[in-house]
Amino acid sequence: MTSTAAAPPPPRAYRRLSVEERRAQLLVAALGLFAHRAPDEVSLDEVAVAAGVSRPLVYRYFPGGRQQLYEAALGSAADELTLCFSEPPVGPPTERVARVLDRYLRFVDEHDTGFSALLRGGSVVETSRTTTIVDGVRRAAADAILSHLGRIGGSGPQSTGTRSAGPRLRMMVRSWIAAVEAASLIWLDEGKRPPAAELRGWLVDHLIALLAATAATDEETASVVRDLLALETSDGPAGRLAELVVPVVAEAAHLLPHATAAD
Amino acid sequence: MTSTAAAPPPPRAYRRLSVEERRAQLLVAALGLFAHRAPDEVSLDEVAVAAGVSRPLVYRYFPGGRQQLYEAALGSAADELTLCFSEPPVGPPTERVARVLDRYLRFVDEHDTGFSALLRGGSVVETSRTTTIVDGVRRAAADAILSHLGRIGGSGPQSTGTRSAGPRLRMMVRSWIAAVEAASLIWLDEGKRPPAAELRGWLVDHLIALLAATAATDEETASVVRDLLALETSDGPAGRLAELVVPVVAEAAHLLPHATAAD
Repeated sequence: MTSTAAAPPPPRAYRRLSVEERRAQLLVAALGLFAHRAPDEVSLDEVAVAAGVSRPLVYRYFPGGRQQLYEAALGSAADELTLCFSEPPVGPPTERVARVLDRYLRFVDEHDTGFSALLRGGSVVETSRTTTIVDGVRRAAADAILSHLGRIGGSGPQSTGTRSAGPRLRMMVRSWIAAVEAASLIWLDEGKRPPAAELRGWLVDHLIALLAATAATDEETASVVRDLLALETSDGPAGRLAELVVPVVAEAAHLLPHATAAD
Repeated sequence: MTSTAAAPPPPRAYRRLSVEERRAQLLVAALGLFAHRAPDEVSLDEVAVAAGVSRPLVYRYFPGGRQQLYEAALGSAADELTLCFSEPPVGPPTERVARVLDRYLRFVDEHDTGFSALLRGGSVVETSRTTTIVDGVRRAAADAILSHLGRIGGSGPQSTGTRSAGPRLRMMVRSWIAAVEAASLIWLDEGKRPPAAELRGWLVDHLIALLAATAATDEETASVVRDLLALETSDGPAGRLAELVVPVVAEAAHLLPHATAAD
């Protein structure tokens, strides 16, 4: 069975890895398991098998065991998710938001069970540290959306020349992000229906509607909406929604003062 | 010091209570503490002091200690909150939703820290049971809102003659409820500003806008909106919002196909 000629390369699992490479390899294996199973259901043995290493080696890198490994994997998923929000500030803002949502929904799709377990809470591995990681992602998401609305959020660096978002606009964006999270969980519950592109379209419509409703009573949001509209096109999300909403709004004509006066 | 004449009545703490009365008294005391402090920061000694009883008596009623007492107090708060959603199905639907939100925001105000700690997660007393209690309240809230939209949700009893809500409408209502929760937490973070009535007005506007945006692409929601509009008045929330949104929508006229054709 042994031959001196054409010896195969040593199996990959036994390749000598640097500390950083080994850590990254363990995290990738852990994330693969945590993505599709509730954290409480993933054992360190499985992580070791998935990474092709021994259990003691997993403990050498993560002496805190599953809890520490879960938090590290979550941190790495959070970094990956935060990268999804990065989008160049060019073109119609609703189309930028649509591209961000496409990447976000792809992430949700690829981390389905882990995403649900994390956001639903009640897990034994949930701690104030895991909550802090999730809150960091929410803050990054809010900052990204505010930047496409031409404002800066409370947590990013304060660049000069760009205005800080006021309290109502910040509340609006953070509420919408909570609604997006809720819709994502429902989407997973319902077997990923409707198709991701349809859900994304509705979430963009939701943001546009929320901007319009908030502009009605908040001067800052009204000014943001005026600036945005100049960048939108008739065949983009805002144009399509405006066209579809006109018949709905037309049915509300009797609510307007002039209609009442004509009664 | 002892006198046979005019003996004072025995102090209230020593009054003989039935098992049910005693349990209720302990829950009221616990809820008072859990409402304004994080559950991890409330000790059983404090609950005993607040109720005017001994620590062993608290343990006799709640042998599981703080965890059991917290879950019972949470269940009792959940019942109280669910009662807030009950609103007769008469008058303009947006005004019914406004009254429900007024009661809900009063509850949030009265249980501020406990409400935040619960929804923010990461608490050591959070379990799958506490998550189930919170989910039950969310389901009850969704059912209540759907009933004011003339539909029944998935979790209530199926009454004849009323249509079940379709998937998009249910997702819309549940997303809005998540947004209301997020806005409530932000409201508490920002020292309960803006005033509750102003926040409530914005949350109603948010629901109306979401209904209009969803009606644009979902036939069932469009039919719900047509039925609702017939019940609304020009001086109610829908009328006021319609009046305020018209100037905002007017600025989007260039997005509409006929405006493009005229270019």
